[in-house]
Amino acid sequence: MHRTKVRIVEDALDANNTIARANRSDFDRHAVAVVNLMSAPGAGKTTLLERIAAEPPPAVRLGVLEGDVQGSLDADRLAAFHVPVTQLNTDAGFGGECHLDANMVRSALGSLPLEEIDLLVIENVGNLVCPAEFRVGEDARAMVCSVTEGEDKPLKYPLMFRACELVVVNKVDLLEHLEFDLDRFLYYLDQVHPGVKHMLVSARTGEGVGAFRDWLAGVAHRERVAA
Amino acid sequence: MHRTKVRIVEDALDANNTIARANRSDFDRHAVAVVNLMSAPGAGKTTLLERIAAEPPPAVRLGVLEGDVQGSLDADRLAAFHVPVTQLNTDAGFGGECHLDANMVRSALGSLPLEEIDLLVIENVGNLVCPAEFRVGEDARAMVCSVTEGEDKPLKYPLMFRACELVVVNKVDLLEHLEFDLDRFLYYLDQVHPGVKHMLVSARTGEGVGAFRDWLAGVAHRERVAA
Repeated sequence: MHRTKVRIVEDALDANNTIARANRSDFDRHAVAVVNLMSAPGAGKTTLLERIAAEPPPAVRLGVLEGDVQGSLDADRLAAFHVPVTQLNTDAGFGGECHLDANMVRSALGSLPLEEIDLLVIENVGNLVCPAEFRVGEDARAMVCSVTEGEDKPLKYPLMFRACELVVVNKVDLLEHLEFDLDRFLYYLDQVHPGVKHMLVSARTGEGVGAFRDWLAGVAHRERVAA
Repeated sequence: MHRTKVRIVEDALDANNTIARANRSDFDRHAVAVVNLMSAPGAGKTTLLERIAAEPPPAVRLGVLEGDVQGSLDADRLAAFHVPVTQLNTDAGFGGECHLDANMVRSALGSLPLEEIDLLVIENVGNLVCPAEFRVGEDARAMVCSVTEGEDKPLKYPLMFRACELVVVNKVDLLEHLEFDLDRFLYYLDQVHPGVKHMLVSARTGEGVGAFRDWLAGVAHRERVAA
């Protein structure tokens, strides 16, 4: 029974990857770079994106695809910045999926203004487990980890920290009020994903957000060169 | 295809509930009260349990079942308090399950010292979506929500907030450093789960932990009266 379950899971991931590749080639055809942004609930993805929406990378037209179990709170926050935002809810027919998969993103393709954007940020459902397992057609994956979550998170959710090429360490403005040991966090991070790029950010104060903006510009530039 | 998926999910939840009832009846036979404790990653479940392990409710023998994708960091922290702790990892054969289900808890029954405890706290995997969908044989469900996660969480993860009979609002020692609007959080909470019990706690400073201890004592007492 256990083996059967593993087989089903492997088949599901294979099917997902096939659809993810189709998404990727549609994005490429429109020369749209795509970032899959992941985190635990409340780590600050939307606040970070508000900063980017207020001041996008130079010459990069930004769009956002918002993944949520229910509601459109985050999409409403971002739409206030006059950035095209598309909402994707995962709660159809069930308690709610805990992640986006390639098929869900595919179902939203028709609603995305691909001709009018250069960079699409997909804000995934807040969860440190399953989103890391499902590619959606992105060029790059980044995660936001808040210092309020404790320094042990890379060890507890290794797949997520391994799946990303960038780890944004957020809420550093709170460091002075916490016992968070940053060196220990970075040591654990290096254990599970040696050499992964990271940056220290406070989406609230704006500290370090420029580095994230530059990183996004770099992903968009890669896509332009490849196209 | 969508309908087929819904059917598979419903069948899986039915099967889960059958096993959860078997777990519950085994726990009842040993007069062990069981609390399923859930939260997002890093909300402070383990720190709260360290407080309880250091000073359990009077005349209540505590045991803990630790659910993690990988590793035994939390179990090691709690074992230091000489409380019986059993580790359950969900990463067998796959990237890792994002929740505990009844069958996983069943597989751990043989390792639990049910004769020697009155109250078992099951620390679920850090996730605000799927754990709410899977009963494991518990008497009561509680969740920990950190004020660092923002006040919108009840609206974004309504099933989790509805599934619990207690919401522990943690890290209130940080309130003065945040823009968290407690009244708004409580208003949202009341919208998704009218009248649900909540308490304000700082696991770090110990503030409010007594109320959680009393609540645990009440769950254990209910079990004793029913047995």
